[in-house]
Amino acid sequence: MVLTTSAAGVYVICPTPFRSDGSLDLASTDRMVEAFLNAGATGLTILGIMGEAPKLAAEESFSYAKQVLAAVSGRVPVIVGVSAAGFAAMSALSRKVMDAGAAGVMIAPPSTLRTDDQIVSYFADAVEAIGPNVPFVIQDYPLVTNVVMTPKVIMRIIEENPSCVMLKHEDWPGLDKITTLRRASDQGQVRRVSILCGNGGLFLPFEMERGADGAMTGYAYPEMLVGVVNLIKAGKRTEAHDLFDRHLPLVRYETQPSLGLAVRKYVLKRRGIIVSETLRKPGPKLSPETIADIEWMMERIERS
Amino acid sequence: MVLTTSAAGVYVICPTPFRSDGSLDLASTDRMVEAFLNAGATGLTILGIMGEAPKLAAEESFSYAKQVLAAVSGRVPVIVGVSAAGFAAMSALSRKVMDAGAAGVMIAPPSTLRTDDQIVSYFADAVEAIGPNVPFVIQDYPLVTNVVMTPKVIMRIIEENPSCVMLKHEDWPGLDKITTLRRASDQGQVRRVSILCGNGGLFLPFEMERGADGAMTGYAYPEMLVGVVNLIKAGKRTEAHDLFDRHLPLVRYETQPSLGLAVRKYVLKRRGIIVSETLRKPGPKLSPETIADIEWMMERIERS
Amino acid sequence: MVLTTSAAGVYVICPTPFRSDGSLDLASTDRMVEAFLNAGATGLTILGIMGEAPKLAAEESFSYAKQVLAAVSGRVPVIVGVSAAGFAAMSALSRKVMDAGAAGVMIAPPSTLRTDDQIVSYFADAVEAIGPNVPFVIQDYPLVTNVVMTPKVIMRIIEENPSCVMLKHEDWPGLDKITTLRRASDQGQVRRVSILCGNGGLFLPFEMERGADGAMTGYAYPEMLVGVVNLIKAGKRTEAHDLFDRHLPLVRYETQPSLGLAVRKYVLKRRGIIVSETLRKPGPKLSPETIADIEWMMERIERS
Amino acid sequence: MVLTTSAAGVYVICPTPFRSDGSLDLASTDRMVEAFLNAGATGLTILGIMGEAPKLAAEESFSYAKQVLAAVSGRVPVIVGVSAAGFAAMSALSRKVMDAGAAGVMIAPPSTLRTDDQIVSYFADAVEAIGPNVPFVIQDYPLVTNVVMTPKVIMRIIEENPSCVMLKHEDWPGLDKITTLRRASDQGQVRRVSILCGNGGLFLPFEMERGADGAMTGYAYPEMLVGVVNLIKAGKRTEAHDLFDRHLPLVRYETQPSLGLAVRKYVLKRRGIIVSETLRKPGPKLSPETIADIEWMMERIERS
Repeated sequence: MVLTTSAAGVYVICPTPFRSDGSLDLASTDRMVEAFLNAGATGLTILGIMGEAPKLAAEESFSYAKQVLAAVSGRVPVIVGVSAAGFAAMSALSRKVMDAGAAGVMIAPPSTLRTDDQIVSYFADAVEAIGPNVPFVIQDYPLVTNVVMTPKVIMRIIEENPSCVMLKHEDWPGLDKITTLRRASDQGQVRRVSILCGNGGLFLPFEMERGADGAMTGYAYPEMLVGVVNLIKAGKRTEAHDLFDRHLPLVRYETQPSLGLAVRKYVLKRRGIIVSETLRKPGPKLSPETIADIEWMMERIERS
Repeated sequence: MVLTTSAAGVYVICPTPFRSDGSLDLASTDRMVEAFLNAGATGLTILGIMGEAPKLAAEESFSYAKQVLAAVSGRVPVIVGVSAAGFAAMSALSRKVMDAGAAGVMIAPPSTLRTDDQIVSYFADAVEAIGPNVPFVIQDYPLVTNVVMTPKVIMRIIEENPSCVMLKHEDWPGLDKITTLRRASDQGQVRRVSILCGNGGLFLPFEMERGADGAMTGYAYPEMLVGVVNLIKAGKRTEAHDLFDRHLPLVRYETQPSLGLAVRKYVLKRRGIIVSETLRKPGPKLSPETIADIEWMMERIERS
Repeated sequence: MVLTTSAAGVYVICPTPFRSDGSLDLASTDRMVEAFLNAGATGLTILGIMGEAPKLAAEESFSYAKQVLAAVSGRVPVIVGVSAAGFAAMSALSRKVMDAGAAGVMIAPPSTLRTDDQIVSYFADAVEAIGPNVPFVIQDYPLVTNVVMTPKVIMRIIEENPSCVMLKHEDWPGLDKITTLRRASDQGQVRRVSILCGNGGLFLPFEMERGADGAMTGYAYPEMLVGVVNLIKAGKRTEAHDLFDRHLPLVRYETQPSLGLAVRKYVLKRRGIIVSETLRKPGPKLSPETIADIEWMMERIERS
Repeated sequence: MVLTTSAAGVYVICPTPFRSDGSLDLASTDRMVEAFLNAGATGLTILGIMGEAPKLAAEESFSYAKQVLAAVSGRVPVIVGVSAAGFAAMSALSRKVMDAGAAGVMIAPPSTLRTDDQIVSYFADAVEAIGPNVPFVIQDYPLVTNVVMTPKVIMRIIEENPSCVMLKHEDWPGLDKITTLRRASDQGQVRRVSILCGNGGLFLPFEMERGADGAMTGYAYPEMLVGVVNLIKAGKRTEAHDLFDRHLPLVRYETQPSLGLAVRKYVLKRRGIIVSETLRKPGPKLSPETIADIEWMMERIERS
């Protein structure tokens, strides 16, 4: 199973489940994979920023990836985040996970990059590191990476690297960027790649309307993401927004930097999907007041 | 009219209206002041970050402040942002606007500050610059200022500066910070000051429940902010969240950095409050697609 | 006297002299101007980052500029820094100082700029703000501005704005950038503008050898900068480096961020040029140990 | 051999030698170790920022560390940089290198830390990760880490963690910080730890005079660092500064971010110590003009 430019739907960003003592929780991992596939995920993404990838030792990253790949067992494509401080680590992880059955890899640029040419060069070097045959995703997430890529820069990366098959879009604001990129590919100015959107889904219905192919993000009720994508594709705009807006209070709550992941894990625990909301250090702990907020929102969502 | 620690309700952050050629629009200013007071504002705040203050020349800032103060004419307190690259400019603007009838000033720390002591010292120096009798507001907005203030640091500033009367809270995540600060003042560990919340109101009902006294933020329908604050104070939790959640799609759209202000101005124009959505350069222009998004959300809000 | 692309020699960056109470010291200003002209300055630059410009109120900036212009009285060109948080303030200051006799203005890009196109647009907007007939200098100082300009971006700004007459170069590392830009102008790929170098002169002899036209920087013994520029132009490489290397210990000590300016002012005071080493708050104070270090270096320089 | 608070002299920061194809060069590693010990190094530090540690894969880091430890063979203590994006990786590397004979580890705080308490907590968590019996060095390098530690914060870390044995000081400006810390330990306000200074040695003689115990830094002629430390300790101030100032032009040239390391490797190659000046990507290449600059400086140093 290889990632291609026609990827669409919802690629759920998987959190990495830990037991309350901080150790990898591989049993929860299996259950989580089933839950996400049952919710309608068309792909999974692991070891991204929201997967606490930097908090795993090199061997742990690989164990976790193997576990997910085994659980998925070829039912959907799995994308693995291989962003690293250096190309040697990126190359090593990429080789291992592709050998183990990953469909492609995702690369976020390091925060030191500034100029257009630096960004373009970085992706050329990254492709050299992972090899020209590994399909890869550009992660465009300036709020976290502090790297701003214009549509022009993204198009240069797409044109210069045939193995680039997808843009993970999470610029903010970013809707006009989707419009610009889709117009460019429609008019033949650039090769068409898949665009899946992140940012916790905060703008998902509008992103679909601008021409995105789906979402690649996490949310504690991924079936909502799937529902919205399908409703928009079916032309049911009002129903899509109605569904989305019902969840928006919790989506908004999950977008809080760092705390949001703990919130998401808490809801996944409450839904019986993972056994602990633990984040590895350094990471926040939920206060009783925050837990009360979450319960309030869950009740309002599940009641409707 | 002097700002005190008992300030509460909704202090609306005023955008600065410009004509389409970029010049100050003082006629719209008067109309906007009336609209915000009619919506139930208990105070106004001008020349903040969302007021495009850094884009005004020194004389323009003062003309605009005088116009707002004249239009308000003592009906509610007016807070003026006096954050500046240096204390001489801060002191000069502060003196002028206080003489002209402002109720207090608001100060955001410069992005160069890092350590706890640097932040505390900065506010001591700022108080020396504006004078010890001018009531002032601490603006805690790390997403924009890049300055992180712990509750401990905020309490030091409050304790060391008797003229500190308010915290404008827009840390993100920030709910537990409100809980911590309110617990500390309830237990007598720190003088109680007013806490008004910003961040475009994105967490307003929860902020009220944590002990905030109200909001200081902008939104194109400020009557919603007023409604939510009043409903929470009246103990009508469900009604407060229902009202808030109806507006949340647009609130969320307005939180987009830089673009959000153009969105807010567009809605204010559509509601007949100002004549142009123009932002001064450098600033975004709304695309037709973005305008269509806004119209869609306005229709859904106004229908309900 | 109008700044042109043939500017060369040493444009001394003037600190702004304050009395020990922090007020502007206009008497020292006159004496400093004479001292710098006697040292061989071919131009002066005021209200730059090292001139504590952001710490001056708008009226003070203009008073100080008028004082310098009057003291210089047309003997050399004076460049005025007009970098500002917004174009309205930039436009206002630029108009005033050009009317008062400045030869040109200097503009540093704001730290929010990231992409190549943002930087190019910013300078286009700035030229619109100051007017197309005001000669201007691009300040390229990434250590402070956090804006990285490639040679390509600088060349675009030069080509698109005929009123651009100079690059103030203080990238770090930056020697190869001079080589690249000079090669490009020699080969007719871009209009030739003056390149004067900053960074406290830390690389001055090498910068001259790469094709710079001189220095625009501050140092407590500006006659050394003049000497090095003249010796290199006269082909006396060894003598130039010998002279420079004798001063390098103090040049190095002056490059310490923020503290360096206090060091420079202390030496200027010791040399009888200004009456106080005071920096406006927030700014460092020299410890007795630091003063002892400076005295040690002065003695070694002056003995040789 | 265990690192203690009485460490002194010159701990040379080792670059990681690569062949021109970018592979680890273990033969050069052995030769480099001998050269540095012959130059008078009292310790070595590997896998620091200047060792291109983030560009090595996990297994490479460990191979390189083993090679150095074997070459040193207990003659001097070896400190290993274990800074990592997460504690799992830090813990894994720390355990491996301590088992292999390292004398201690060095930890730089991640750039996300802002408040005093965040920094103190981070080191507490790091000590939990590496274990309480592993001697560790605080790396205080705000220019690169963007984390500013006051003397008070450093003292809290020292007091709360008995296994902290050394401060690697490279704040800038930083001389008064040494004075403050030494005064505090002399007056019994804080446990005395070793202070070794970095920053390419740019302020070495003054740092020794302020109370530092030596240097932990890299320079292409480490015998100069050793000479300066010994002369200062012998009370020969003038000779120490004379020796240092002769090298200062090249020291200054080596402090250029990123390029400086390529310069250092070039000189080490020219001196027959390593076989290639190659940096791993992304990294600069030396231009012919830069090589000519270096040769000029080498000639002036070696002649004198």
